[in-house]
This record gives sequence, structure tokens and C-alpha cells, in this order.
Amino acid sequence: MQPYELSLAAAAEEIRTRRLSPVELVDSVLARVEEVEPRVGAYVTVAAEQARQAAREAERAVADGRLRGPLHGVPMGLKDLVDVAGSATTASSRVRADHRADADSTVAARLAAAGAVLVGKTHTHEFAYGLTTPQTHNAWDHGRVAGGSSGGSAVAVAAGSATFALGTDTGGSIRVPAALNGVVGLKPTYGLVPRHGVTSLSWSLDHVGPLARTVEDAALVLSAIAGHDPRDPASLPLPHPLPPADYRPTSGTDLTGLRVGVPSTYYFERVAPEVEAAVRRAVERLGDLGATLVDVEIPMTRYIQATQWGLMVPEATAYHERTLRAVPDLYEADVRVLLEAGALMPATDYLRAQRARTLMRQAWGRLFEEVEVIAAPTVPFTAVPAGQDSVTWPDGTVESVSDAYVRLSSPANITGVPSLSLPVGRDSAGLPIGMQLLGRPLGEATILRVGHAYERSEPPRPLAAPVQPLASSAV
Amino acid sequence: MQPYELSLAAAAEEIRTRRLSPVELVDSVLARVEEVEPRVGAYVTVAAEQARQAAREAERAVADGRLRGPLHGVPMGLKDLVDVAGSATTASSRVRADHRADADSTVAARLAAAGAVLVGKTHTHEFAYGLTTPQTHNAWDHGRVAGGSSGGSAVAVAAGSATFALGTDTGGSIRVPAALNGVVGLKPTYGLVPRHGVTSLSWSLDHVGPLARTVEDAALVLSAIAGHDPRDPASLPLPHPLPPADYRPTSGTDLTGLRVGVPSTYYFERVAPEVEAAVRRAVERLGDLGATLVDVEIPMTRYIQATQWGLMVPEATAYHERTLRAVPDLYEADVRVLLEAGALMPATDYLRAQRARTLMRQAWGRLFEEVEVIAAPTVPFTAVPAGQDSVTWPDGTVESVSDAYVRLSSPANITGVPSLSLPVGRDSAGLPIGMQLLGRPLGEATILRVGHAYERSEPPRPLAAPVQPLASSAV
Repeated sequence: MQPYELSLAAAAEEIRTRRLSPVELVDSVLARVEEVEPRVGAYVTVAAEQARQAAREAERAVADGRLRGPLHGVPMGLKDLVDVAGSATTASSRVRADHRADADSTVAARLAAAGAVLVGKTHTHEFAYGLTTPQTHNAWDHGRVAGGSSGGSAVAVAAGSATFALGTDTGGSIRVPAALNGVVGLKPTYGLVPRHGVTSLSWSLDHVGPLARTVEDAALVLSAIAGHDPRDPASLPLPHPLPPADYRPTSGTDLTGLRVGVPSTYYFERVAPEVEAAVRRAVERLGDLGATLVDVEIPMTRYIQATQWGLMVPEATAYHERTLRAVPDLYEADVRVLLEAGALMPATDYLRAQRARTLMRQAWGRLFEEVEVIAAPTVPFTAVPAGQDSVTWPDGTVESVSDAYVRLSSPANITGVPSLSLPVGRDSAGLPIGMQLLGRPLGEATILRVGHAYERSEPPRPLAAPVQPLASSAV
Repeated sequence: MQPYELSLAAAAEEIRTRRLSPVELVDSVLARVEEVEPRVGAYVTVAAEQARQAAREAERAVADGRLRGPLHGVPMGLKDLVDVAGSATTASSRVRADHRADADSTVAARLAAAGAVLVGKTHTHEFAYGLTTPQTHNAWDHGRVAGGSSGGSAVAVAAGSATFALGTDTGGSIRVPAALNGVVGLKPTYGLVPRHGVTSLSWSLDHVGPLARTVEDAALVLSAIAGHDPRDPASLPLPHPLPPADYRPTSGTDLTGLRVGVPSTYYFERVAPEVEAAVRRAVERLGDLGATLVDVEIPMTRYIQATQWGLMVPEATAYHERTLRAVPDLYEADVRVLLEAGALMPATDYLRAQRARTLMRQAWGRLFEEVEVIAAPTVPFTAVPAGQDSVTWPDGTVESVSDAYVRLSSPANITGVPSLSLPVGRDSAGLPIGMQLLGRPLGEATILRVGHAYERSEPPRPLAAPVQPLASSAV
């Protein structure tokens, strides 16, 4: 096994016990970047020299017995919405061509303090406003979409060109590419991870969180970045650093006594049969591990799409108002039309969406009195070929690929509850399938424990092994 | 002294020690209602028979040694936005002619549980959307405005036709009429008092709070109504009931060590000379009591008015959207035009106001690191004659009366900090002048302590003694 193939937990442990040097690990990951990057396009920029420099410092620190933190010497990718002092934050947009960040974002500073080494900035769908990330190719099939908007982060982790990465999630942008590339992605509870220094899409829906190869790895990253920062007005008053034990799951897999909700509405409707089957098998596994499976009805499903869009569209436009007026031509056409649409929306429509969100939060609160976790597909189908805009369901309805990819993930953004996506097998085309575990507000420890228990009941997952491009959608 | 003249604290103590019967007290207040109501018009409805019935029950309970709570047998008025089961909540509007509340609002239920007896529902400017309350006359000069929107509550307390009352405050609607009628009004911290069952004007700015004759009385009412209710989405997670000791000020008047901010910007600009002089004298008194007076600069003052209106106008329209479409003619002209204007406002303008609010909250947070209390006028001038729409300042600028009355009170709504208005004398026309004490979030105990210390340094205030109507504004 090459160092770049190691999980974060394994790599950090090898470094801590001096069986692996941070220089070896970073060199191995950088070599992997050179190998796969021409085919996957995960990175906007790779900071090879700075990474090697940081690795050498990390190596000396290990020799001196000074570990910076639990991520000491581990190479990471940061979605290119995350400010790193002295670097551009391009948001994968020409609008940001001349950008330069003066200071680290909260999460970049915390990861650096924990010892992580920055490999580079990963591609996002422009300004995070889309579900495909066209610059990046799916790690398993280079003719298919990476998913988005954190496509670069998911592909880098899946392909071995980063040991872990950060993404952002406004409607599903961590979990969708995690599912489509067969990695783990966690959207934490709204307000748990500060967004100071992270480019906003829609501040009442935006979340920052980890993409990693295992549930345990995601827990380790979350422990490093969670906790209060007053510079994010929505940041919850929880201490930082939180004790890692809060999130790192124990090795036990017994789920006895845990009530897992299985949606009887919404989440299994208009879902590809292979996706549904894989998720239902995974849910049964949770039952085998001792969990009590409970049918639950998802409330207010008719309002989900209107609420997500009603909140997101005007907030995004408000954020971009000045640049949209100054340099409209620098935006990609798909993003520009959404931003321009937001300028036409009346305040009362936005407020209607806000009120619907309040009612949905209350209704989900009652739902989570019945169960501690809800298990559901992350996305309704696996990665579609690049350029495919819509899918046709057996009942004849046509749905845009973006609407479909966001459909099952956005409820967690609207309500703010945490959601963990993890791989639960592959379809007949070899493409990864994701299951999400939704939890109570601040219930990260529970969904990580459940995800970890599931993972330990499975054989270890290999890195992405690209399959042949296929001619048609897997739906 | 007649029972209706007693403060809440005095009346409750007389009842507790069986020197006064709740029946005597309620009868005295009802007789006062009959005497003054034809001239002041504070009440929409008076529930005399129910009040007498409740008083008889309270009397029996005292005889049996069962006091319901700290407000046992005390007569109150509730602004007619506050639901009481089985009664109409008219909001002083024809739109609500057929209304009937199914259940008590949280505050009505808590006050009933504390033993208070409802005298009646008091007038509001229609749906709380205005600063004058045209149905009601100032308690001191019946030809002048009551102030608003909680005009009925303030006038009833000032005139002796309620021992205390509740109001609501979205831009100043508790404090403005409190100042204009010479009573105490408290706008608590946003989220401290639940608004479930209280008609909304603008939910991100709305507060419920007490109007009373003394600071101690306001503290007693606050103790009865503060604390969490999950049915108000903005309700803070604080226990209910809170121990009364949390708010009831002690008898001490020593303010040594307390830092009181005196604004060098905004709050003393365009303020009538007699108002400024009275407030500055009161501030000096705080210094005499031991407080350290500190000049402070109010931040972002250019944004206050636009932020208040930018938040309030579309939220009000969103709340009224259906009735505005169905029965527009049932609204008064002044309210209808504001509601219709809100329908034309783009979401991005609302979001700009939201962002300004976030920045203002942060800037005020820094301001309150320097001082614990800020002392300022509540309103720039005393009660104007009914029908006067605008004032002309010495520099020639013309300001609408509504804009002027809300100008100094709205910062506490935007930022959510608590603000206590208390009388600090009268002008040469005999009209009351109010000073507000603004505190840190959840700093109610401090501003109540300061207000109480000031009050104890003054002779007791009499009930409103109407003066002759004057021909011109006091400005």
C-alpha cells in the first residue's frame, strides 16, 4: 500500500509513531496528483513547494517530539472558497481572477494548527452555485460528472490526491459529490463549524464540512474545525477545540437501542432501483447491528424545493450584487442567470420561504423525537455523463439533473440538521452509491457512530478504480 | 390613596397580607375605568364582569391561604394583540372584527398563572403599525397623542385604569407611549419573552414587555412572563419561571463601579431642549449615585432608519399578505399604504437590511464591552397635539412625527438589546419626558437596578393629572 492510499487515521498514527515521515506521505500524495490530475482535474492550484516545505517542518517537529495536533503532517485539499492567507480564493470563477486572501479562514487556521498540510485548492462549481463542477471529472468514470459543488474535493479524496478535504454544502454540495465519488461527506449542524473567511453562497443555508475516505476520518476533521468563532454571526456558542472524543467513534458496532427512521415518504420516491436497493440493504444492515428500524413520514415535503430556492436565490444575489452589476460577463451563463433571477424576487417571497423553514424545523423537531437517526439515499441516481442535463423517470416526468441531485440533500440544509453521506456499494456500471444518515441538531456523534458501525461491517473500500465511460445514464 | 393608585408591588403586598381584598382593588380600578375611559379611550373592550368574578375567586383563594402567584389579584390591561382564549384579538382593526382566539397566548397564560386579573384589552395603533394610537388620548393632555403603538396600555397605566399592562415593541411601541404618558416601559432582550399567541408586526423586531408605574413593577411583570416557550421560534433557551430575584431590584441605590455610556452621537441630536436638559439631569443623577459616566460613540447611525424600515416593511406585508388581498378596504389608509409598499420591495433590499443588522449587532457588542448601560432620551420631544403630522427643527429640516418618535427607540429593536424607559420629569407644558436605559443582551437586571436607583432618588410620581390642551407642539 502506498502512503497516498492511507486513511487519515492510519496516516496520522503512522506519523505519530514515526513509521511514516510527513515528507514521504506528502511526496506520495503529490506524485499521485501528478498521475491523476490530468484526467480528473480536481485542483485549481497545487501548492507543491509549500506542501513539501510544510512536510519537512512537520518531519523535524516529529523528530523533536513536537506534534502540532491530531492531523500532524496529513495532506489536505481545500475547496477554493476557503481563504488561505496569501493565496487566491478563485471560487473557480473568472470574477475572482485578481483575488488574494489577506488572512486564513477560521477552518484553514484550525486545520493548520492541527498540523494538516495544504496540497492545494480544489475546484468548485462556480461560486458553489451548481451541482456538477464541470471542470472536474468523476473519479470512477472520467466521462461522468464529479457532482458538486465540492466536486474537486470529493474527487481528490476518492482518487488519492488528498488524504482529506473540506467542502461547503448549501443544498447538498458536500454530500452529493461524496456520494457520486464513493467517499464520506459530512454536513454538520448549522452553526457548528464557523464560516468566517469562506465565500458565501447563501448564508442561512451554508455549511462547511469534511470529505474523507472513512467515517472515522470525517470525525477527526470535524473535531479539528468545530466550535465557536464570533466572526461567523451564526456560529453556535460551543467551545473550540472540542475534545476529539466527542466525535471520534469507538470501535463498537452494536446499535442496540438506537431508533433509525426509514422514510415512507419522499426519500425513496423517484430513486433509481439500484440506488434504492443498495440503501435498503444498508438500512437492513443497521437492523442486523441492533438498531430498531421505524417507518417515519417526512413532513411538508411539498414545500422543500420552494423553500430551498426561495432562501438560496435572493441570498446568493445579495452576496453578488456589486460584481454582478460591475462584471456580469465574467460569470458562467448558468450561474449568471440564477443571480439575475434573484434580483427580481420580492421580499415577501423570501419571507414566505423563511416562514416555511421555521415550520419545517419544528416539524422535523417532532420527527426527531421519534427516532435518533434517519437513513435515506443521498442522491436519487449515480453520476450521469458530463453534459446530460435531465433525466426521465418511468412515470414520464422529466427532472433536471441539478434538481434531482439536490432533492434529497436540501432538507438537511433547510432544517440545519447534520447529515453524513457514506458509500453503500456500487451500481451495475461500477459507480458509487451513497446513503445519508441524518441526525438531531448537534447529533454528529450519533450519526458518526452509526456510519462507523456500518463501515466496520463491510470490507475496506479501495480508492477509486476508474471504470469505462458509458454511453447512457445509469437511471 | 385609592386602591387604583397603588403600584403593583404595593397592591400585591397589601393583598398578600390581607389588608386589601382583590375585590376592592378590582372594583376601584373598574370605577376608575368608568371615570376616565370616556376621556382617554384606552380600552377596546372592558371585561368588567369576568374581572369581578376573577377578583371574587382571588379573594376566596386569599382567605384559603392559596395565592396563585406574585401578581395575585392585580388588575391588568393587555394590548389587543395578545390572545386571550375566548376573546377577540381585534388589533384595533376592522380586519379582525370577527376574530376569536382559541387559546391563551403564552404571556396571557403566564400572567393568569401568576394571579393577575384581566380588566380588558387596550388599544393599539392598528396592527401595531404606527406611533400614535389615534383612538386613545394622552393621559396628561387629552388633546395630544397617546403615542404608540401600545398607546392604550400606557394611558391605562398612567390614568389608573390598570395597575399594569402589556405592550409590544417593534420600533419603540412600548417605550414611546411609556415616555409620552409618564410611565415605565420595558422592551426586553429579543427572545426573552415568548410571542406565541401575540399578533406579529415584524417577527425579527417584535418584542412583548410590561408597562407599569414603577421600575420595580416592571421587574415583577417581567419575572412572570420571561423564559422559554418552543412555540416562539426565536425564544431563547432560558428557564420559565425565572426566579423573581433575577429581576426585582434590591433597595440599594449605590451605583459605584457601574459604567454608564452617554452618547456623544445620535441620541442627543435633533432633540427638544427641555427633553435634552431633563435627560442630562437624570444622567448626572446616576453619576451622583456613583456611576462612572463615559462618553460613547453610537456606531453605524446612518444605517439605523433604513435597517429598521428594510426589515419591518416586508415582514409586515408578508404577515398580512392574504388579508391585504382579500379585504384591503378594511385597513386604515396609513397602514394600508405601508403594507402595499412592502409588496414592492425586492428580497435583496431586505437582505441588505439583514446584513446591516448583523454588522450593527456586532458593533453594539463592542460598544457594550466599554459600558454596561447607555442612557439616552426615549423620544426627541413630548406628546404632540393629535393630528400633527410633522415637526420642523431649528435647522429647518422637517421630520414626520412617526419618524421622530421611532428614531431613538429603534436601535434596540434592530440589535435586540433591552431598553427600559422611565419618567425623568416634565416639560414646561406639564408633559412627561422619558429616559431610556439600554443594556447588554439579557442585561435586564442591570438596567432595572439602575432605573430603580434613579426612581428612589426622586419623590414618588403621582398618577396622570391632565393638563390643559395646548395649541402648538412642545418642540
